[in-house]
Amino acid sequence: MPLTKTPLLAETVRKLVSRGAAASAHRILSKLHPADVAQVLVDLPGAYRLKTFRVVYQRDLALAAAAVGEMGVERAGTLLERLEPGAISSLLQELDPDDAAGFLSALPEEIREQVLRGMRAREASDVEDLLQYPEQTAGRIMNPKVFSITEDTTIGEAIRLLQASPDVEMVFYLYVVDRHETLVGVLSLRQLLQRRPDVAVSEVMVTDVLRVRTDMDQEEVAQLVASYNILAVPVVSHQGKLVGVVTVDDVIDVIKEEATEDMYRMAGLGTAESVFTAAPRSIRMRIPWLTLNLATAFLASWVVSLFEASIARFAILAVFMPMVPLLGGNAGNQTLTVMVRGIALGELSWKNSRKALLKELSVGAANGLLIGLLIAAFAWLWKGDPRIGLALALAMCGTMIVAAVVGTLMPLTLRWLKVDPALASSVFVTTATDVAGFLLFLGIGVQALTLL
Amino acid sequence: MPLTKTPLLAETVRKLVSRGAAASAHRILSKLHPADVAQVLVDLPGAYRLKTFRVVYQRDLALAAAAVGEMGVERAGTLLERLEPGAISSLLQELDPDDAAGFLSALPEEIREQVLRGMRAREASDVEDLLQYPEQTAGRIMNPKVFSITEDTTIGEAIRLLQASPDVEMVFYLYVVDRHETLVGVLSLRQLLQRRPDVAVSEVMVTDVLRVRTDMDQEEVAQLVASYNILAVPVVSHQGKLVGVVTVDDVIDVIKEEATEDMYRMAGLGTAESVFTAAPRSIRMRIPWLTLNLATAFLASWVVSLFEASIARFAILAVFMPMVPLLGGNAGNQTLTVMVRGIALGELSWKNSRKALLKELSVGAANGLLIGLLIAAFAWLWKGDPRIGLALALAMCGTMIVAAVVGTLMPLTLRWLKVDPALASSVFVTTATDVAGFLLFLGIGVQALTLL
Repeated sequence: MPLTKTPLLAETVRKLVSRGAAASAHRILSKLHPADVAQVLVDLPGAYRLKTFRVVYQRDLALAAAAVGEMGVERAGTLLERLEPGAISSLLQELDPDDAAGFLSALPEEIREQVLRGMRAREASDVEDLLQYPEQTAGRIMNPKVFSITEDTTIGEAIRLLQASPDVEMVFYLYVVDRHETLVGVLSLRQLLQRRPDVAVSEVMVTDVLRVRTDMDQEEVAQLVASYNILAVPVVSHQGKLVGVVTVDDVIDVIKEEATEDMYRMAGLGTAESVFTAAPRSIRMRIPWLTLNLATAFLASWVVSLFEASIARFAILAVFMPMVPLLGGNAGNQTLTVMVRGIALGELSWKNSRKALLKELSVGAANGLLIGLLIAAFAWLWKGDPRIGLALALAMCGTMIVAAVVGTLMPLTLRWLKVDPALASSVFVTTATDVAGFLLFLGIGVQALTLL
Repeated sequence: MPLTKTPLLAETVRKLVSRGAAASAHRILSKLHPADVAQVLVDLPGAYRLKTFRVVYQRDLALAAAAVGEMGVERAGTLLERLEPGAISSLLQELDPDDAAGFLSALPEEIREQVLRGMRAREASDVEDLLQYPEQTAGRIMNPKVFSITEDTTIGEAIRLLQASPDVEMVFYLYVVDRHETLVGVLSLRQLLQRRPDVAVSEVMVTDVLRVRTDMDQEEVAQLVASYNILAVPVVSHQGKLVGVVTVDDVIDVIKEEATEDMYRMAGLGTAESVFTAAPRSIRMRIPWLTLNLATAFLASWVVSLFEASIARFAILAVFMPMVPLLGGNAGNQTLTVMVRGIALGELSWKNSRKALLKELSVGAANGLLIGLLIAAFAWLWKGDPRIGLALALAMCGTMIVAAVVGTLMPLTLRWLKVDPALASSVFVTTATDVAGFLLFLGIGVQALTLL
């Protein structure tokens, strides 16, 4: 398995490059799949990454470009930024326009224009066309190089046309257009093989073609391709003209990207961050979230401060105080995760949300009761005071119910407001469970200790 | 967009079924893609789901089976369990063996045997073969119906063979085997079109075939297919015999499943849970995690109890006590999420983990300092006591550093121990940040308040 061997390869390549044996380093890399070259580059220590990349770039532009394509925007970003704009231009024009557009839009604004001007006119205009579509839409991720034939083409001609276009990489379907370039039919590669050469494609094509519009959200495109088990979906303009194709490999990237995005948003991370994002950038990206959490932490402290006098009297309240918000937060996070993932996988909508809420309410109440009883028993055994146990049990039940309601409704509401439900994230849920947890436990605890 | 219309369709179908107009309901459903039939079934209220499914099942077995296939194991599980074993058998034998194996292994043990015996002998034995491979391996998810030809076949014969096997659904590549069924080459559908019919496939095939062994983990298979941008990968036995193929649509399912698994594990959820898992089952599945958290919550309470006497003297400590663990937990969760995702996407290994740790340490220290200063200023302004601010700032720095170390090393260690890194999850990280947060803040706070 080549992929798992890359750390060893990276070490060999590093030694060769450090000894100045560039030709030998290139010989090793040239035998690899571009995806493996990309992995070797990622595995190399920072100082050698650029050097090694230059070794490949100077000897084999196509391989260097393919490796950049495989690294993806985030991982290749720091590498590209250290190259001259001319070198970036020559790399990007080797890539498919959709990939080139992705890299270009991630470059610092000041060199973007320069890189575009340095590219061959045709490639530059393809990329510029794509950049006119908003990010994360079908138009932005599609490949405008789509193989299409006209209605009156025969099967035999279609095969010859296909043989004559080696640069159209992944052809799975032949799209048929009329003279206005409107998409009118589709034919699989396999159907080509099963018909006589003199039949017109219009006689065998399927006319009910599944298609997406340029402005469809990339996540919806991915869900469509995944649930219909198709390899590519044609993209049409508002007028129905065939303008591109989104293939299954792009869809895989979107699915990974969206999963990362959901996980990141729930933890309050910027989507652009990865393991090796430079520290100063990570610091800047994480601070806003921590500041937001700081505000909610102050809210929690303020709730506690309402009970300061009582705590001075019954310090035992402070000892048990962290438990209810902590467990309530965990339970809320469980509900939230199920909901966010359910929305992402298309299982949860407003329509069936009442059912989801009722379910989470009963789960929350039951778990609150069970955990509440456990916690009460422990507290009683530890401190010998049943009143603290009672307060813990009641507060636990109440907080778990709050966790269920907020954990269910928050992502659904955000979805309804057309905001990413994953932004609901822990912060809102833990704010609710913290406030409810401290308020209920301290409120009930003070009453129990003074009255009972 | 058919998919987004399914809630409306579900309502129409529900009305027809409740009125007994089964034929009309079937007419509507029969015009849909099986994926949409599946979505309609999911959208239907529980009472109508089984009824509607029977309507389809009685009139169009193939469509019913395809819809079950599209629903996937988790969503179709409750539906299948309510059918007679005979009906399950007749549905499963319509599916690809890999899908049938997935459904079968999710059925209650007591009816599994009965369902297998009810299937046609050939299909049953295909499924039994697959079930011998461990879950989540290439062998378990592969389709054993793989299209292969022998070395001496000509291009013309290969095309005829392909035309004669309409039941091999997604053929992208033609695998070439020798007389021992050992995989020796591959040929794309497109290469077939570009050669003369009398050429032997052995002359044009690529002999360096990327392949996986039956025991490879499904996540690795998915990473391979995704990073090499291929549509299918052949699966071979330990002896090199071609035994099946994993196609890109299976890979998409694996990628989604693994992303769900990571998100779920980090939140302490069982992978089998989804939005509409029955409440009693959800309660049972979530309780162990909450109990584990209960133990860590007691640990936190115990740490606080060490300072009970001091809190009785300085109740203000209790007011600010929740802030440090709360923010430390958030920061730890950010680090953890980046690491877990980095491991899942293949960006982070032991090899480069020192770099990751150093980066997280500097991010933690910097953010700890910044948030610590902010928190100190606020506390000073609010309560007019700089000593609390000092304790908050120092404790914040220390806790953020703990968060960075634990958040980085925990998932890496689990990975090294060959345990899923996502199991590291919040629980270990928040335990560490809670203990560190309370200990540091209360420890420093008591010193500051008594000495300064």
